[in-house]
This record gives sequence, structure tokens and C-alpha cells, in this order.
Amino acid sequence: MNKQTTTHPGRGPSEHTIRDQVVAAATEHFGHFGYEKTTVSDLAKSIGFSKAYIYKFFDSKQAIGEQICANRLNMIMDIVNAAIADSPTASERLRQMLKALTQAGSDLFFHDRKLYDIAAVAARDKWPSAALHEERIRQRIENIILEGRGTGEFERKTPLDEASQAIFLVMRPYISPVQLQYNLDTAESAAVLLSSLILRSLSP
Amino acid sequence: MNKQTTTHPGRGPSEHTIRDQVVAAATEHFGHFGYEKTTVSDLAKSIGFSKAYIYKFFDSKQAIGEQICANRLNMIMDIVNAAIADSPTASERLRQMLKALTQAGSDLFFHDRKLYDIAAVAARDKWPSAALHEERIRQRIENIILEGRGTGEFERKTPLDEASQAIFLVMRPYISPVQLQYNLDTAESAAVLLSSLILRSLSP
Repeated sequence: MNKQTTTHPGRGPSEHTIRDQVVAAATEHFGHFGYEKTTVSDLAKSIGFSKAYIYKFFDSKQAIGEQICANRLNMIMDIVNAAIADSPTASERLRQMLKALTQAGSDLFFHDRKLYDIAAVAARDKWPSAALHEERIRQRIENIILEGRGTGEFERKTPLDEASQAIFLVMRPYISPVQLQYNLDTAESAAVLLSSLILRSLSP
Repeated sequence: MNKQTTTHPGRGPSEHTIRDQVVAAATEHFGHFGYEKTTVSDLAKSIGFSKAYIYKFFDSKQAIGEQICANRLNMIMDIVNAAIADSPTASERLRQMLKALTQAGSDLFFHDRKLYDIAAVAARDKWPSAALHEERIRQRIENIILEGRGTGEFERKTPLDEASQAIFLVMRPYISPVQLQYNLDTAESAAVLLSSLILRSLSP
């Protein structure tokens, strides 16, 4: 990427574009060299921007890391939503949800191996994007349970918040990339076994 | 502890006693200073043994760490067994098992905060004691399911190995100390919610 000294930060779309460029280059760079070991100077050098220029768009390395993390989690959510969209029943939606979560989580944080350390820092420092991601998934689970109760697929005795929170807890080790690292080798078969168990727990 | 130059390693009970002394002192020392940052020299100095003397009983720092880890996991298993012993039904045994696992895991690895890093190394380097611990718990789960099927508390349609493996997977984030660290703040309520979900999945 070339040095772009003619762009004026703070003027609408151009700022947006430059932020995106920095995030894309940083994703690439962290993916190779790791997030924790990279400084903003390293990053600036590799992108071909000055360090001062990067600081016009991001307050800190963490701000860039948070954006990368948020982008990856949004991608996971998009993949989950797409996987659910075509499922004909609530049961199938739950199955597809857990399958997509484990698959997308593995791909997006572990395929580019070094991006995993962004997830580790996000978990350790409780970045808001991670909490938001979990909350969205919790909400999705609740909606699917409601749909399944409506169609008579699922039992209705258990309080809704209890059922959805418990299912969220079963899925959590595969939602959080930092926990997923310990479950990677068995994640695919675990997703099958766990969704079957969840569905047994929901049967009327 | 004093230097014991008169003991003859390799002669039955005395060797056993000295090994225990080294492990006890090392547990204390690692608990204060961390396992990863401590060398056998540091440890020898703090116990009052020579480094060469410690090497008569343990091949490496890791051998000491593995013994500490195995001891802690055995303590957890004893606590779990005691918690299960008094439960009148298979359902209650499953509940008490998960409760005891989370409680004992938190106490034994996180109360002495620094011992946690032994668990992290054990998980990373796949020490046999961690695998053995998981296998014992998996076996316990299978036995409880069999008991519950015998008394009619649990359904019998799901293949036994599928049901027990799935329940093991639900419990795993609370069994492995390295995963428990991410679930500590919610472990107590999670144990309640998850055992209720497990029991719903087992209902006939």
C-alpha cells in the first residue's frame, strides 16, 4: 500500500476508506507477526503510512485491534445468520447455529493462526465487541426457542430465560475464540453431540 | 525444611517421604512465585536441598509439576466422589458432581492463584494426569447414567456412549482448570443451569 498524504482525515467517506485500509493492512500484519508483539510503528512501516498519520484515525493499537475483532465477530454472525436462514425448523436452526459458530470461529481466528492472540486480549481485557457478540447469540437462541415453542417442537415448562441461558452456556466454549482454542480438535463432533443433547433437553 | 544429607534415595519409604516433602514445598513455592518463572535452583534454595539432591528424586521441574497437578486432580476427584456418595438418586448425583467439580476446581487451582499456571502448562503440553482425570470423570458420568436408566429416572433411547460423551462435553469447561479460568465468575450459577439442562435431556 502506498503512502497517501493527500487524503484529508475527518471528511466523510475518505476517512472511512482510510480507516478500512488501515484495518485491512493491520489484519494482514497481525496475522503474520501477532498482535501482542507488533507496535504501531511496525504497523505504520509495513503499511507505508507514518505513525502520526495512523494516530489521526485510531487512538491506539488497541483501537485497531478492537476494530479487527469486531469485524471478525460480525463475519461470524453473518455466517451464522446465513446458516440459519435456510433451516426449515427451529431444531434445525439450533443445530446449524452451533455448527456454523464452531466452523466460522475456527476459520476466522485459527486459520490465520496469529489472529488468535487478538481474541485472547479481547477476552482478557473484556473488549465490548466480545460482550456484544455473546449478547447477540443469546438473543438468537431465545428467538429460536420461542419459534420452536410456537410450532410445538419444544417444551414450554422451563422458563424461557433459563432455557436460553443454559443453551448459551453449552455453546459458549465454541463461541468465545479464546475458549475454542482448547476445543478445536473435537469441535466438529462436539457440535453434533451437543446440539443433539440440547434438542433432547427441549423435547416436549 | 532442613537439608537431609543422610537419607538414602531409592530405599523404599524414605524415598517416598522425601518425594512428598519436595512436592509439598514445591506446591507452596509455585503457589507464591508461579511455576513457569521458577527454576529447580530457586526451588532447591527455598526448600534447603541442593539442586543435585532434588534431581535424585525428580528428572525435571516438569516431573515435580506433574506430581503437583496429579495430586490436585486427585483431590478434586476425592471431593467429587464424596459429594456423590450421599446423593439418593442418579439425578442428584449428576447435579452434585458438576457442583463439586466447579467448586473444587476453583478452590484448588485459583485460590492459590499462581498454581493456575501449572494447569495451563498441563493443558498445553498434554500431561497424562489431565487426560486421566477427564477419563475418570467420563467413566463416572457413564456409571451414573446407567444407574439412572436402571431406576427409570433417565430415558434409554440415546446410545449410552453418545449420552455420556455429550454430558462430558457440557461439563468440560468446568473440569479443565485452564478453561475454568474463563468461566470462574459465572461457574456457580452455570453449574445449576447446566445440570438442569442435562437432566431435562435425560428425562424419559
